[in-house]
Amino acid sequence: MPETPGTGGQRFGDRVGAAFAAHGRLCVGIDPHGHLLDRWDLENTADGARELGLRVVEAAHGRVGFLKPQVAFFERFGAAGFAALERVLREAREARLIVIADAKRGDIGSTNEGYADAWLKPGSPLESDAVTLSPYLGFASLRPTVDFARKHGKGVLVLAATSNPEAAAIQTARVESGGSVSTRIVDAVAGLNHSASEGRASAGEVGDVGVVLGATVDFAESRIDLGALAGPPATPILAPGFGAQGAHYRDVTRLFREAAPSVIASASRSILEAGSAGVAEAILRASEELSR
Amino acid sequence: MPETPGTGGQRFGDRVGAAFAAHGRLCVGIDPHGHLLDRWDLENTADGARELGLRVVEAAHGRVGFLKPQVAFFERFGAAGFAALERVLREAREARLIVIADAKRGDIGSTNEGYADAWLKPGSPLESDAVTLSPYLGFASLRPTVDFARKHGKGVLVLAATSNPEAAAIQTARVESGGSVSTRIVDAVAGLNHSASEGRASAGEVGDVGVVLGATVDFAESRIDLGALAGPPATPILAPGFGAQGAHYRDVTRLFREAAPSVIASASRSILEAGSAGVAEAILRASEELSR
Repeated sequence: MPETPGTGGQRFGDRVGAAFAAHGRLCVGIDPHGHLLDRWDLENTADGARELGLRVVEAAHGRVGFLKPQVAFFERFGAAGFAALERVLREAREARLIVIADAKRGDIGSTNEGYADAWLKPGSPLESDAVTLSPYLGFASLRPTVDFARKHGKGVLVLAATSNPEAAAIQTARVESGGSVSTRIVDAVAGLNHSASEGRASAGEVGDVGVVLGATVDFAESRIDLGALAGPPATPILAPGFGAQGAHYRDVTRLFREAAPSVIASASRSILEAGSAGVAEAILRASEELSR
Repeated sequence: MPETPGTGGQRFGDRVGAAFAAHGRLCVGIDPHGHLLDRWDLENTADGARELGLRVVEAAHGRVGFLKPQVAFFERFGAAGFAALERVLREAREARLIVIADAKRGDIGSTNEGYADAWLKPGSPLESDAVTLSPYLGFASLRPTVDFARKHGKGVLVLAATSNPEAAAIQTARVESGGSVSTRIVDAVAGLNHSASEGRASAGEVGDVGVVLGATVDFAESRIDLGALAGPPATPILAPGFGAQGAHYRDVTRLFREAAPSVIASASRSILEAGSAGVAEAILRASEELSR
């Protein structure tokens, strides 16, 4: 197996900050959905998913800092799909793109260790720069995964407030100690970044632990503390929902206010709809709109 | 690829009911953790994980009705781990065991379709009888997966109240319309089973949608409605936490009261610790204790 690049001894947050500076905040999703494979004249198979992924890596190289493969669209092909994903992850990391595996994993104890080994362990076939995590079993249950990630120069991004309408039922529920489920996760993540920097963070510094916040969430209504996320150190904010899901690139600053500089703005369908011939141009256009 | 057995036209709930009648309520976990592979004199590799899984299938055959492979312990080996899991799933389903893939997946929209295709679609390489789901993005976001499962004679088991101490922070949060996050999930799942039966369920009938309830949860304190779960139709309750995690088989009825008949009591470490030579005996012993 060819070697995948390491982290160069850098923290995940440092690499995120460098990617912001070099390429801006756009993150391109790799969602090899059946209808997109069709649009790309590719078969709805693991081979088709790999081919779409590799073409997106090529189009993204030098134009953007972040890629976010959606694991479910590879997982549906079983082991063959994971072999395809391994190849896409390796090529992406060799191209020095920051790869966020969108897996939304979450369990307890040694089972979480299994997931950390899968996505964050140097040398693992599915090695990524960061993985998304789901906190239904309690944010504290994910803490060992955070420590594992940091030890290896990796990151995690924890679901906090998502933009789908069904999410409010759980995410706005009130916790006993005050606040809502989503505000408590935001505060806990920001707190981990603050305590890791021991009060010595300089402006522009980015933490290793991030949150997932849908771009179409009303942060004022949900009382999400954007100030705490702004830092320093700034908390990385993975924000899906751009393009196809209704948020506009030009609105990032209006929506995320002081936390906008650490938003990783993710778009998938709206870019991939451009097809194989148009994807590089669609990436450039989205990135330009975002940096205006 | 060899054909895996279908559902024989039966609903998931019917197969669960038949398994209870034939073999009782024990579910054997397949958790090829590094230290267990060592205990079994197997390598900490995908091959070792496959071998452990196949031996558990053989030991379980005819002695127990349910198997629960923990996906994370295969996922850590990437595509090779999933190939091992595919083999274990196929052998288990050929042995007519009911296989619950413990994956705790959960996302939105077409991404959930990807996970449903992976675990529940007939003919998929990872085809299982049921999959565990995580509802952080809202229980309603999982509804299309429930419909997909039913259409194909499959089941889903949704995390509700888990037994790890970190879980309370989110699972006991109060939702706006009353109740806690976990009680609302229990009620919603029981409601789906009741409405599917259209009031015509007979005693002993089991629904296709289940919940995950830790055996060490205090159901009175958390106001989980065990009566609604009792049915008819009864809601399948996957209850981890037996053996190593502290719950005793003899306490199932005391803990789950009227809902006890539909408890799928899961044990992993306590059985697998017996090693390759002792696992069949450990399964028999646990199953006997449970049926007393």
